[in-house]
Amino acid sequence: MTSGPIVLSMGDPAGVGPELAVAAWALSGTAGLPPFAVVGSRRILEQAALRRGLHAPVTSVATPADALAVFDTMLPVIDVESSGTWGGSAYTPGEPDDAGAALALASLTHATELTRDGQASALVTGPIAKSRLASIGFDYPGQTEFVGAVCGVAAQNAVMMLAGPHLRVVPITVHIPLADVPHVLTTDLIVRRAIIAAAALTRDFGITNPRLALAGLNPHAGEDGRMGHEDLAVIAPAVAALRAAGIDARGPLPADTMFHAAARETYDVAICMYHDQALIPIKVLDFDEGVNVTLGLPIIRTSPDHGTAFGIAGTGAARPGATVAAIAMAGECVTRRHSHD
Amino acid sequence: MTSGPIVLSMGDPAGVGPELAVAAWALSGTAGLPPFAVVGSRRILEQAALRRGLHAPVTSVATPADALAVFDTMLPVIDVESSGTWGGSAYTPGEPDDAGAALALASLTHATELTRDGQASALVTGPIAKSRLASIGFDYPGQTEFVGAVCGVAAQNAVMMLAGPHLRVVPITVHIPLADVPHVLTTDLIVRRAIIAAAALTRDFGITNPRLALAGLNPHAGEDGRMGHEDLAVIAPAVAALRAAGIDARGPLPADTMFHAAARETYDVAICMYHDQALIPIKVLDFDEGVNVTLGLPIIRTSPDHGTAFGIAGTGAARPGATVAAIAMAGECVTRRHSHD
Repeated sequence: MTSGPIVLSMGDPAGVGPELAVAAWALSGTAGLPPFAVVGSRRILEQAALRRGLHAPVTSVATPADALAVFDTMLPVIDVESSGTWGGSAYTPGEPDDAGAALALASLTHATELTRDGQASALVTGPIAKSRLASIGFDYPGQTEFVGAVCGVAAQNAVMMLAGPHLRVVPITVHIPLADVPHVLTTDLIVRRAIIAAAALTRDFGITNPRLALAGLNPHAGEDGRMGHEDLAVIAPAVAALRAAGIDARGPLPADTMFHAAARETYDVAICMYHDQALIPIKVLDFDEGVNVTLGLPIIRTSPDHGTAFGIAGTGAARPGATVAAIAMAGECVTRRHSHD
Repeated sequence: MTSGPIVLSMGDPAGVGPELAVAAWALSGTAGLPPFAVVGSRRILEQAALRRGLHAPVTSVATPADALAVFDTMLPVIDVESSGTWGGSAYTPGEPDDAGAALALASLTHATELTRDGQASALVTGPIAKSRLASIGFDYPGQTEFVGAVCGVAAQNAVMMLAGPHLRVVPITVHIPLADVPHVLTTDLIVRRAIIAAAALTRDFGITNPRLALAGLNPHAGEDGRMGHEDLAVIAPAVAALRAAGIDARGPLPADTMFHAAARETYDVAICMYHDQALIPIKVLDFDEGVNVTLGLPIIRTSPDHGTAFGIAGTGAARPGATVAAIAMAGECVTRRHSHD
């Protein structure tokens, strides 16, 4: 049901996820957000609203479809707490525990399944604490890989993109030690992920012939091999293969000079070789509005590009900009993808 | 003679160095720049002014001191071309050759010596092409190491800082392959360079107790060792050693979240582990005004943070902001350093 609402997973209940879901609902009218339902705990959302001083009546719904009729006046929640074995712990922002991690996982699992099964049009995931989830047996590097697995997509084909008002970046390698990057990086991996990125920019972002700028790995993109061989040996062949496949790809470019305003105008997405090469520029430019999008999935999935922020959870300091942007972007992707149907 | 003028080396004559020296002189009144002399070729500077459409009468002077009397009305040049064996080639922006490289080296050498010997108060170096200089036997990774050697400072103690209106960064490792960074990075190297940076911020930048923020090497600064060991094994001990030495140091911090506006307010310099970790954020924030400062030298040396830009040399497109900023910063450092004398 592609006309269904978006579903939000609540994230760790001790983090900023619940209060930002409530804050996004409160802003949904002014921000023009599409309807959504939160999959999580009605009790916690009500307390989060109270604590943040927001007028946000929360109501339980049985299915995403039921959310459409109530969204204008109430925040609809699909309550997974009341049916589970983890419920009832106190709402204690900033103090994560295993019961909260179990609730976060139940929320994520059910929200993902609802989207995979077509009851929701897109999935927006709230922030979890990976180490907390690991302690209850969650065996994935992050939510991206989990969502991929639920959807039957191999981890290597679920591609992370960070997108903000000023920049889109795709890190080819993500959560691995920097010392491993030169070994993990292959021409095949770069080509595979860049092709997924290009296809998604066309299908979900409305860019007919996306322009890809590939960053070099070494300083000055290696200066013709004088400072590292990977730029010539690994990245340049990937650019050639992408061009041969009809994709508008350039590079490898010196990473330090590809993110200023004039340079950014020359491409639609920067394909970066490692985590910080991608995340440093986007967090400089779009810190409060960065959205994490998973490309290559059968479903549309976005996420605010920040963590649980346990340190400020419950204080009202967390800014809802990235959550609002993630919901808005998910809605835009739904519209664009189904305009091709 | 600390009251002497600043000297500028001209850089590669086929690059943007000559025209930006002339443009900076033309802006010196409005920008409030201290007096300077260019060490280079009178002939080329005159042609660069003509080509850029600038009214900039150039006059030869014998010593930096002679520049003071004429600077208000003419651009003073210490002409090394007329006394050398490389002179007389055509001024051909965008077409570097060995004669130009030799002229650039003569300019750099003489300007550095004049500063080292106290005839000039500071050195501002124009952009050279390292590969060009290498072809005529220049055996240094860059101008920084050359200037260090002329001043009798070991390469490891000449520390590069990039500084702009929004950020200061020090890359601990610079022009080496990314794969070598984890091996080259040691606690001792970090501590040594961070101490030099802290001392220079006090002496030349007027910051009494500089706050240092040290970046992690791995994603999320390694997440307690789950993504790489260097953050805990190499960088954390460096932070501890710096604090034991009385320096206000913090870290290792996740590199992706330390460069947004609110984070930048918490430190005076970011100590980064490799080239792009430092240069990506400063070139996003201060692309046209970035200044390269060499710390740890007996002399004051700055440089515009860009290359020869052969592709736009002679077209008038090169912006003088970084050259103006480099001259202004050199002048401020002269004032501050000698206020301690």
